[in-house]
Amino acid sequence: MLMPDNFPKKVKLREVGPRDGFQNVEAFIPTAGKLAVIDALATAGAREIEVASFINEKVIPQLADAEAIMAGLAGKKFIRSTLVPTPKYALAAIEAGADQLVVFLSASESHNRANVNRSISESLAGLDTVFSLAADHGVSVLGAIAVSFGCPFEGAVPPDRLLSIAETFRDLGADGVIFGDTTGMATPGPVSRLVKSYQDRFSANDFSLHFHNNRGSAMSNLLAAMQVGATTFDTALGGIGGCPTVPQAAGNLATEDVVCLLHEMGIETGIDLNLLITAARDMEALLGYPLPGQVMKSGPIDWQAGNP
Amino acid sequence: MLMPDNFPKKVKLREVGPRDGFQNVEAFIPTAGKLAVIDALATAGAREIEVASFINEKVIPQLADAEAIMAGLAGKKFIRSTLVPTPKYALAAIEAGADQLVVFLSASESHNRANVNRSISESLAGLDTVFSLAADHGVSVLGAIAVSFGCPFEGAVPPDRLLSIAETFRDLGADGVIFGDTTGMATPGPVSRLVKSYQDRFSANDFSLHFHNNRGSAMSNLLAAMQVGATTFDTALGGIGGCPTVPQAAGNLATEDVVCLLHEMGIETGIDLNLLITAARDMEALLGYPLPGQVMKSGPIDWQAGNP
Repeated sequence: MLMPDNFPKKVKLREVGPRDGFQNVEAFIPTAGKLAVIDALATAGAREIEVASFINEKVIPQLADAEAIMAGLAGKKFIRSTLVPTPKYALAAIEAGADQLVVFLSASESHNRANVNRSISESLAGLDTVFSLAADHGVSVLGAIAVSFGCPFEGAVPPDRLLSIAETFRDLGADGVIFGDTTGMATPGPVSRLVKSYQDRFSANDFSLHFHNNRGSAMSNLLAAMQVGATTFDTALGGIGGCPTVPQAAGNLATEDVVCLLHEMGIETGIDLNLLITAARDMEALLGYPLPGQVMKSGPIDWQAGNP
Repeated sequence: MLMPDNFPKKVKLREVGPRDGFQNVEAFIPTAGKLAVIDALATAGAREIEVASFINEKVIPQLADAEAIMAGLAGKKFIRSTLVPTPKYALAAIEAGADQLVVFLSASESHNRANVNRSISESLAGLDTVFSLAADHGVSVLGAIAVSFGCPFEGAVPPDRLLSIAETFRDLGADGVIFGDTTGMATPGPVSRLVKSYQDRFSANDFSLHFHNNRGSAMSNLLAAMQVGATTFDTALGGIGGCPTVPQAAGNLATEDVVCLLHEMGIETGIDLNLLITAARDMEALLGYPLPGQVMKSGPIDWQAGNP
């Protein structure tokens, strides 16, 4: 039976929309527009936001304004997280004021090669310097593992490989690990088993789960993960993210949908749902096309207001 | 912990797309197009399909071709289910060859009045004749309860009221009950509690859960329901249904998304996922706008095929 007592009292949501979402938008969103979205997220209560990638702007031109974004966020109180692929970009992110770096590789050799043209061990070797740079500057680092729940080239990923990569990240000094379901292939069974085996091996809960909704199962994965004690999830305002060339191919779990569900379950997020809905609607107007988030359309579950 | 052993080995999906979906499409879908969708569903393995409503065609002109639909399905082997509001329409459905009638009322007085301009007890009184007509003709009847998980006018619905209406349906001779989350307000806790209390009270599992995805929580509700033993769900091809005036305001759980998830969990549905995906894509072409289903866009979780 589903026991509400099993669930965490409080869940941390890492907001990834400004990074994972905007990098997948076809057009370049002007810096001021991005900053307005980030500000609205922070005002709603988001405390850890992936605000940019420091990365070759030829590869992801949508995020070429990373330095301007960071300048616009100087002095803000939330954790300004940025993706970085190499020591050079890590240093740029640190100098621009990043509070947290996210380094990444893929759980499969073929996806890692397709993504960054390196083997997994080559990727890991290059990260050593990123971790020492971060340590020197008092900046935290998370290690993200793409295609954790299925590689488009190799299929299922052995859980042992995920744990082994996670261990390497932890040995390098990572403050946490992110398991990314890049392909939307996760289902409750493998999610549940990974969470349990991570907790068993490391006696820790310092990981985030990053679910894409490509096959409609993301919210069931979140539920399954919480049932075994997961407490941190990556989500994106409006459900942005994913592939811009496939209409409605869902991106990340929508932050406002997750907040709505968690609050109904009595789980704290520290986020104001109504402000979040306003932020999502404003972002939809900025982007100019319908977003996959549902609560931003249907409104909160408000028993009193005659809200359908 | 999420124990796969807790889940049912087999789940029955009631396909409601041709009724709940097409009634919410703005344009009238030609009868031949509707029949092609129903045929494709049956070929994919759907064994119980809501194919029409026998109802005042001024109220729902989209389904005014109920008799022609039934004529086109003569001799088909699946259960041809139809919604009927009154004895007059029940008789028309039976004469047209319906195998199953679905009668309905709302869990709240104010929604029932808004929907059919009657009190709940007036609705129940009128159903007596429907049940005897059905019994006389050897046709089964399901009793559907709208706004089971929240009324837009009255808010939360007391579970006792749902059980009491279910009991009346059963006393009248219903072969099962459908709990409809018409407003997309259901969340895992209330879903789980309703399933348990229904099973406790009636020592039976003869109910279906009908989740709309207005707030993104439908798939998590399905998971929670299966964990306490629910084995029947209403789903709609492509995730159609809901409100046509709100872009992307999700309708029902997409049949193909549910089938994909259940098969990954080792739960049988009797449905061929690839045929279902083709049916959903063909229906999308027929309707002429993007549907909310995800697996019809991303494809099955096929580890071998390089499918992203």
